[in-house]
Amino acid sequence: MPSSLPPSELSVNALSERLATRLVDNAARLRIAISHTPDGTVIADAGVDAMGGVEAGVLIARLCMGGLGRVAVRMSLEANPLWPSMIEVHTSAPVLACLGSQYAGWSLSATKEQTGGKKFFSLGSGPARALAAKETLFDELGYRDRHDRGALVLEVDRLPPPFIIDKILRDCALAPDKLTLVVTPTHSVAGTVQVVARVVEVALHKTHVLGVDLGEIIEGSGSAPLPPPAPDAIQAMGRTNDAILYGGRVHLTVKSDAVARRLAAELPSSNARDYGRPFADIFTSFNYDFYQIDPALFAPAEVWISSLESGATYHGGKIDMALLDAQWSGTLPAAAVGGAAQP
Amino acid sequence: MPSSLPPSELSVNALSERLATRLVDNAARLRIAISHTPDGTVIADAGVDAMGGVEAGVLIARLCMGGLGRVAVRMSLEANPLWPSMIEVHTSAPVLACLGSQYAGWSLSATKEQTGGKKFFSLGSGPARALAAKETLFDELGYRDRHDRGALVLEVDRLPPPFIIDKILRDCALAPDKLTLVVTPTHSVAGTVQVVARVVEVALHKTHVLGVDLGEIIEGSGSAPLPPPAPDAIQAMGRTNDAILYGGRVHLTVKSDAVARRLAAELPSSNARDYGRPFADIFTSFNYDFYQIDPALFAPAEVWISSLESGATYHGGKIDMALLDAQWSGTLPAAAVGGAAQP
Amino acid sequence: MPSSLPPSELSVNALSERLATRLVDNAARLRIAISHTPDGTVIADAGVDAMGGVEAGVLIARLCMGGLGRVAVRMSLEANPLWPSMIEVHTSAPVLACLGSQYAGWSLSATKEQTGGKKFFSLGSGPARALAAKETLFDELGYRDRHDRGALVLEVDRLPPPFIIDKILRDCALAPDKLTLVVTPTHSVAGTVQVVARVVEVALHKTHVLGVDLGEIIEGSGSAPLPPPAPDAIQAMGRTNDAILYGGRVHLTVKSDAVARRLAAELPSSNARDYGRPFADIFTSFNYDFYQIDPALFAPAEVWISSLESGATYHGGKIDMALLDAQWSGTLPAAAVGGAAQP
Repeated sequence: MPSSLPPSELSVNALSERLATRLVDNAARLRIAISHTPDGTVIADAGVDAMGGVEAGVLIARLCMGGLGRVAVRMSLEANPLWPSMIEVHTSAPVLACLGSQYAGWSLSATKEQTGGKKFFSLGSGPARALAAKETLFDELGYRDRHDRGALVLEVDRLPPPFIIDKILRDCALAPDKLTLVVTPTHSVAGTVQVVARVVEVALHKTHVLGVDLGEIIEGSGSAPLPPPAPDAIQAMGRTNDAILYGGRVHLTVKSDAVARRLAAELPSSNARDYGRPFADIFTSFNYDFYQIDPALFAPAEVWISSLESGATYHGGKIDMALLDAQWSGTLPAAAVGGAAQP
Repeated sequence: MPSSLPPSELSVNALSERLATRLVDNAARLRIAISHTPDGTVIADAGVDAMGGVEAGVLIARLCMGGLGRVAVRMSLEANPLWPSMIEVHTSAPVLACLGSQYAGWSLSATKEQTGGKKFFSLGSGPARALAAKETLFDELGYRDRHDRGALVLEVDRLPPPFIIDKILRDCALAPDKLTLVVTPTHSVAGTVQVVARVVEVALHKTHVLGVDLGEIIEGSGSAPLPPPAPDAIQAMGRTNDAILYGGRVHLTVKSDAVARRLAAELPSSNARDYGRPFADIFTSFNYDFYQIDPALFAPAEVWISSLESGATYHGGKIDMALLDAQWSGTLPAAAVGGAAQP
Repeated sequence: MPSSLPPSELSVNALSERLATRLVDNAARLRIAISHTPDGTVIADAGVDAMGGVEAGVLIARLCMGGLGRVAVRMSLEANPLWPSMIEVHTSAPVLACLGSQYAGWSLSATKEQTGGKKFFSLGSGPARALAAKETLFDELGYRDRHDRGALVLEVDRLPPPFIIDKILRDCALAPDKLTLVVTPTHSVAGTVQVVARVVEVALHKTHVLGVDLGEIIEGSGSAPLPPPAPDAIQAMGRTNDAILYGGRVHLTVKSDAVARRLAAELPSSNARDYGRPFADIFTSFNYDFYQIDPALFAPAEVWISSLESGATYHGGKIDMALLDAQWSGTLPAAAVGGAAQP
């Protein structure tokens, strides 16, 4: 059986180039503010000074997957929907789309001296990561992209300082006017969309952490409820995590039956020590120290894993929409509700 | 927070121009008949002499939203579907897409003398409304489009007479060969699709009637069941209304928590005096006088309103698929049904 | 009412030409291997030596419908999904898309002498069928395509021999370098997708077998669960059939009320003598002789038929996901499953 690991001829930056162009060309209707550095680097602000929105977030999510994923926001159609709006993601190149591009693995920081102002920190995600390939993950993937244009997504609440832009250009070996930086704060609508759209990526990352051979993973699909951002920074971060940890579902197709069984059992977030409380509570209880959180928590709530070897599909975990509903739903005074309104 | 009201640089006619072109280029497969007036105005008949269809209706709905919405027909996937086929709508520019373009607000009428035959009446909807801007709504929106091409949708059962076409051209300041008129009778399949696809627009319109600042509305999504048209004109009109009033769902994102609470309580159709009976019955009982019907009825059945201020999502109303099912479903003789057929 | 039978000016090969081009241009990311015969005929291998995948299968299904259908893979979003991944199909030209193009009706065989090796057999499906028009079905449809390019899909587990390619070229009257042959084995992921995407086609074919005038059929939509392929050839074939026979749903719009009633009663697979057992079991019990199987079995499990004449929608049949679940789901040892895992 041929390897499913990304063939080197695919360029996530080439495949997503038209999505970066579309972001700029449709900036007005996407409520994105486009600016340029003196050297011509494109800054697409999708939530700092500009408002952004759901459609911007969907396009950014697709860009972030290196053009190798399908992302949509969908209404729930059943009698009693779990949540009105859901994000759905599909990719036939899950390793390359999610780990080679979408994963927020590039640590970008600058001191006060380097910025000439406030210190800066952001995790970079998206295709330009594969040009820089600063993470050991790329050695493990055996993948490095070569392309003369690139795009990087920064989940941060201000525009990146020149020091950071210069570093990205240097590490990616890009001419300044060939780089697009997309800024999506966690507390923005577009930021919420593009983070919740990581539901398959989160599954892929945990699969990697579990030590499973990534060449096993052939197909990936996922869904998760889409809440609005919370105004509080910690709560906003908590929401996007909760959407995946308690509301996320993933269907993977893998090669071997042993891997399918193992992932169905071990992949769901319910395996983690800290499972069962809202993420913001967990994070707060550990004094905002990410490294205290059981890494096994970062996973979808419910998974189906299909095996090509056996043809069987294994199911593990379960979404807990009651936990999400309790946090995300506001309560109307009974008197304010119309005749046939909610029970 | 920047205003969500449509920035003036967006042109709903420019954004939807390619959809009008696609309608013409794909006329055969969409079962649309294209004709031209002597001066070159394009008439796209999607249900008068031509048969039209669902795909035509979806494309017309997108055109009608000024290129700013996503519209799809979807199968219900759950164990016991409420209805087999549903329409789903999304827009990140709900005010401009729905009120600035899709709303059927332009009253176009001609006397027998003016037509030289039968008198004519139709409500115009779609992007060319924003070129003419004959409605006070455009002053309230602070929006007027400028573009050298335009398209208008007419929900009427015959092609428009020259008097009406001339009036549209004059009011839109368009050259005759730069206007596309799309005709979709209420009793046609395409007409049904494009009217049911107004589920978000109906919510926006009632929001406006309630006196809520439209700058509050950031995002809109909706769904509604798609029935076939009824052969009877009143019943056909009743169906598209019922699909929204009893089967429509909308998820809006607004700025303030107060508006979110208010809309969750007041927006659903269940707040209206006349709620609870099929629309055709109500209309008939008022002797076909629209103005006797409680305007609060024109609304989706069920809403979720998310607030960016609080991050809370409020839920109000409830769909009543039993009412729709009783009207829309035919009954098979028990003996005619195969072994494992419907209970 | 104008006829809904395909107008002759539509060319399924012209309409799907860009999809064949897309298959070739995106071969690497679709995991398709492209080769060429010495004369330039394009062979797109989506599962013999190449791995293929879901996205390849979706594109092939759209190509196979002559560019006249929409096909998508979707996550189930409800509380207790019947199956995680579903295929959804829509067409506003069901007769032409499904019978004029997608139906696997062209029998292509070669003896050992003709191949110079193993004997070959495959059923050809897709738009090039309508160029050759070797099946009596085309006379009944009154349709024959003329175009200088064509594509044919072969559900077979090896590449076609030169004898077969020459026959196709001759019967289609195509220059060698204007033909694209797409090979999708039943046991491949892409093959499974493109076969399950025949859910509406299966309904159209049975409608035809029932002797219903095809001019009655105006619109078609369908859904079916998407399993991975089984490694065993008979089981793989059984799965794709079961997905439709026990998990398939179709919503058709027809002209007359009498036809709607009749199809709702007679179309579902539950009308067949052999209904109720997995297809592989039935096939095996008849000693692998297709012609022993009740042809009425080849149908979707559940149907809704809407009538334009009456406006009524009739419902017949019922999906049996329990039968599919028992065959397709693997069982995890209880001890292996995390805290909040499956019940």
